[in-house]
Amino acid sequence: MPTPEARLAALSPRLRIDFGAGVRFGHGKADLLDAIVETGSISAAGRKLGMSYRRAWLLVEELNTLFDTPVVMTSAGGAHGGGTQLTPFGHQVLGAFRQVEARTRAAIGEEFAPLAAHLLAPVTP
Amino acid sequence: MPTPEARLAALSPRLRIDFGAGVRFGHGKADLLDAIVETGSISAAGRKLGMSYRRAWLLVEELNTLFDTPVVMTSAGGAHGGGTQLTPFGHQVLGAFRQVEARTRAAIGEEFAPLAAHLLAPVTP
Repeated sequence: MPTPEARLAALSPRLRIDFGAGVRFGHGKADLLDAIVETGSISAAGRKLGMSYRRAWLLVEELNTLFDTPVVMTSAGGAHGGGTQLTPFGHQVLGAFRQVEARTRAAIGEEFAPLAAHLLAPVTP
Repeated sequence: MPTPEARLAALSPRLRIDFGAGVRFGHGKADLLDAIVETGSISAAGRKLGMSYRRAWLLVEELNTLFDTPVVMTSAGGAHGGGTQLTPFGHQVLGAFRQVEARTRAAIGEEFAPLAAHLLAPVTP
């Protein structure tokens, strides 16, 4: 039986930021950017998250339409056969999203603390 | 052409809180609770939000499984033919959610402020 504190700590944000016109930047795209940093490739990042190359590429393209500066850049050729990486601006965007997420998580912990004793362990619907 | 400040102000949170086991409390359920407060009825609240009575009822039931105390209560009969209202506990839950949402909105404004000059007006995909 988890304690109220453990149940409260288990509440986690699923954050999306609505940029208007139906375009959202959320945990899915943020995880994709993290996976691109880690793997240096859109296809490998997509594979890691269980999405097709096409879907991963579309998400990256959508992100690139939100700003006047690219978030992700692909370099051709070179000794390592090229690859995809976040631009310095892309790292700033990802950092801002993760900061908002962390602050949301903290806000959940504080605002739901008075209700923690009433939290039930959720049951799969 | 909107200013960077106007573009920044247009960014809005689409927040869901994951309670585990696939159950989430997000803006959809929060809007439904607001509509129940306003209309005094699950079916009228659902209509207001363009959802079926069945869907609205299922969302309310899901909310009631998250806590050991009901969020919504239906009173039978009476001079006004009964109706549905939030319990005092339900008002607390809704208030906590709206507080987290407001704090997330403030965090977006602050964390994305350094990037505001790079925001483009989004285009419908």
